[in-house]
Amino acid sequence: MSIRVLVWNEFRHEKNKPAVQAIYPDGIHQVIAKFLREAGFDVKTATLDEPEHGLTEAALSETDVLIWWGHTAHNEVDDAIVERVQERVLRGMGLIVLHSGHVSKIFRRLMGTTCNLKWRDIGEKERLWIVNPSHPIAAGLGEFIEIPQAEMYGEHFDIPEPDSLVMVSWFEGGEVFRSACCYHRGMGKVFYFRPGHETYPIYHQVEIQQVITNGVRWAAPRQPVTVTFGNVPEMRT
Amino acid sequence: MSIRVLVWNEFRHEKNKPAVQAIYPDGIHQVIAKFLREAGFDVKTATLDEPEHGLTEAALSETDVLIWWGHTAHNEVDDAIVERVQERVLRGMGLIVLHSGHVSKIFRRLMGTTCNLKWRDIGEKERLWIVNPSHPIAAGLGEFIEIPQAEMYGEHFDIPEPDSLVMVSWFEGGEVFRSACCYHRGMGKVFYFRPGHETYPIYHQVEIQQVITNGVRWAAPRQPVTVTFGNVPEMRT
Amino acid sequence: MSIRVLVWNEFRHEKNKPAVQAIYPDGIHQVIAKFLREAGFDVKTATLDEPEHGLTEAALSETDVLIWWGHTAHNEVDDAIVERVQERVLRGMGLIVLHSGHVSKIFRRLMGTTCNLKWRDIGEKERLWIVNPSHPIAAGLGEFIEIPQAEMYGEHFDIPEPDSLVMVSWFEGGEVFRSACCYHRGMGKVFYFRPGHETYPIYHQVEIQQVITNGVRWAAPRQPVTVTFGNVPEMRT
Amino acid sequence: MSIRVLVWNEFRHEKNKPAVQAIYPDGIHQVIAKFLREAGFDVKTATLDEPEHGLTEAALSETDVLIWWGHTAHNEVDDAIVERVQERVLRGMGLIVLHSGHVSKIFRRLMGTTCNLKWRDIGEKERLWIVNPSHPIAAGLGEFIEIPQAEMYGEHFDIPEPDSLVMVSWFEGGEVFRSACCYHRGMGKVFYFRPGHETYPIYHQVEIQQVITNGVRWAAPRQPVTVTFGNVPEMRT
Repeated sequence: MSIRVLVWNEFRHEKNKPAVQAIYPDGIHQVIAKFLREAGFDVKTATLDEPEHGLTEAALSETDVLIWWGHTAHNEVDDAIVERVQERVLRGMGLIVLHSGHVSKIFRRLMGTTCNLKWRDIGEKERLWIVNPSHPIAAGLGEFIEIPQAEMYGEHFDIPEPDSLVMVSWFEGGEVFRSACCYHRGMGKVFYFRPGHETYPIYHQVEIQQVITNGVRWAAPRQPVTVTFGNVPEMRT
Repeated sequence: MSIRVLVWNEFRHEKNKPAVQAIYPDGIHQVIAKFLREAGFDVKTATLDEPEHGLTEAALSETDVLIWWGHTAHNEVDDAIVERVQERVLRGMGLIVLHSGHVSKIFRRLMGTTCNLKWRDIGEKERLWIVNPSHPIAAGLGEFIEIPQAEMYGEHFDIPEPDSLVMVSWFEGGEVFRSACCYHRGMGKVFYFRPGHETYPIYHQVEIQQVITNGVRWAAPRQPVTVTFGNVPEMRT
Repeated sequence: MSIRVLVWNEFRHEKNKPAVQAIYPDGIHQVIAKFLREAGFDVKTATLDEPEHGLTEAALSETDVLIWWGHTAHNEVDDAIVERVQERVLRGMGLIVLHSGHVSKIFRRLMGTTCNLKWRDIGEKERLWIVNPSHPIAAGLGEFIEIPQAEMYGEHFDIPEPDSLVMVSWFEGGEVFRSACCYHRGMGKVFYFRPGHETYPIYHQVEIQQVITNGVRWAAPRQPVTVTFGNVPEMRT
Repeated sequence: MSIRVLVWNEFRHEKNKPAVQAIYPDGIHQVIAKFLREAGFDVKTATLDEPEHGLTEAALSETDVLIWWGHTAHNEVDDAIVERVQERVLRGMGLIVLHSGHVSKIFRRLMGTTCNLKWRDIGEKERLWIVNPSHPIAAGLGEFIEIPQAEMYGEHFDIPEPDSLVMVSWFEGGEVFRSACCYHRGMGKVFYFRPGHETYPIYHQVEIQQVITNGVRWAAPRQPVTVTFGNVPEMRT
């Protein structure tokens, strides 16, 4: 059975900013959904302004990996939905958080930290160096990915030290950033991937599509052990 | 200047359970405070039923390391106070979470997971093996600590993989547990230490006191780098 | 294409100890090879007393994952062959080190530590608890594996802290042990798995076979990034 | 008692290259020894061309932290001495490996990998960003350290994933590098710190001196647990 991916997008910029609309006329989620479908996954989409943000119990129960893109409306995401997503991740659903999703409620909640960082948006060059070349998320890539124009994110990035650090970005303007970070939380896997500002055609870039595709494969639940919690009345010796 | 420790206790069992009162007549916090004072720290205490649970902005601003013991009243801890404590940790305050504090709001919030586990309370033997013998939290100990009678906590323990795992417990009844777990969160350090059930005199045991004393030294903030977040308008090349 | 596995065995006990011969008449390697073949892998074997220990350049160049079982003759393994195996691992070959291979030259060389431990061989019960239930090496297992009779290995185990710790053993006699440890070294993956003393039929046990099978899948090289080293004469901005 | 530091230097460039002699007329080791003495440590030095490279059993037995600088003569370091140093580290001595020591025999042996990297020596700007601002090795620093002219080291750096990653370098020419990496090996701590090419006055820079000073404090042995290895004949339940 194909991996079932749900691509979630705030979907605001694409409606109210012509510059973004020019790059993502149908929304960032549609571009992501398209290349993931071409990679063979079973892909649906959901957006903030749908009922329950499109993240109903039914929708999540049919999702192996959730992809999250948000930017200006993090606070409009309902706390109850955030809790629902967190529970799903802890029970095994994969989560890929993109770019400005670093301060989404769901990512902060799973990390336990502020997830703050430095930023600068002048369209400078970014080069993502792979520091863990045998990691499945780097499969099929060259030694680095170059993005001609990007918004800079700089350290310090207030996250827990990743379980695996896969890429570190170099920015023309003088900063570095831990750009591809893997975590295990509960039975689920969480992958933060930095690139993706809405005013540059970054999700149209083939290497970026490759990383997200690899990320879906990495984050998808396998055949986990069924764990139990609670009272064990007797010794088991 | 001495490290300033605030010992927080739910302080309920000691008032309503004679068996607990026999072991901790003035409360678990007073026993912990006493041996920490003897170790040279500047120690205060706070309890759930004080205004703001004794965790006022003023109290926390004078705290280097907060110790947390809670069991039956986790839900009575006010969310706003939990958020305040979390913010303090992320800005550098150390936090030591003891025993049943594993499902306290503050620990779950900093971990991002359920922090669930297995348990059995029949007074069985526990042996904590040190797996990281050069870690400062193990300083001055032998190869293991033995607790004659303990409540069992068993795996799976739903926590993020620790930044450092210092001890693993063996239980007479057949389980194991990751009992001394170190984390960095924001500028702060978090130490989870398993022993301490209220119906056994575990905090009277000298090796347990040594570990908590070591934990205070490890978790106390040093001279951290002052980080900045937000917009950096210009390149700095 | 199937994953190509080479099962290496010292193959001495099975020739000179009747008790071992009774359990592994054709050698430990043949039992391991058999269940790996049934799992669909392309499996060959090699033993210490073959020319170059059966670990020729040709043999290794056709190997995706090497499995290592040694006990009493670690010192008879030629240093040049050890170096050859290490180079292969660093270039991407997976390595699974079993049981008493903990002090093999190849494992010590890849770890950089003594890899010493405690041991006791009285046929006591072992229970391996899974502490990382979503790890691929735990796929399809229950919450623990029980081995009725085993040689005990106890902490402290002098290894680097694993990149992922998957299982912790409980022993009847009072010890614990980090029994399933994952490492990345160069482009290769290394998996240490504790069970397997030659005087007990442990590799005949289906859950143990499942773990080794999972380990082969985890350790097999994927499509790694081709890295380059050395002088880069020009800036690449 | 003061921490006892032994600063080891290959000490060749300073004798045969005028450009290096101009910066380090008495040798790199003397500059390092001087600022460490001023920090209050008890400091000695040793060099390659002394008997046993100055690393006698007696010298090492009086050393808490060994600092290693080598470049062109790694192969002249005697294997028996390397083994002796490794044994000391595993028994608790701290080791700080500087710059081109990344391919020293001792560092490769403790890491188990090639420790290869990319390099370019055109005197470009380096900026070391602190990614773990509460780590003791970053104490007292600003958010980054800038080195006006440096030899570039670039990823991929073939090392095990560090137990803690403290700094990441940005280079003017477009590369990044994991520049401050902490490891535990046996009872000892190992700190790799990138800066220090012999043709630039990098060890005269006060922030670099601060990092090495912090590194000595971090790597110095505390009061470790005395571990035992070998046979444990009886159950201890």
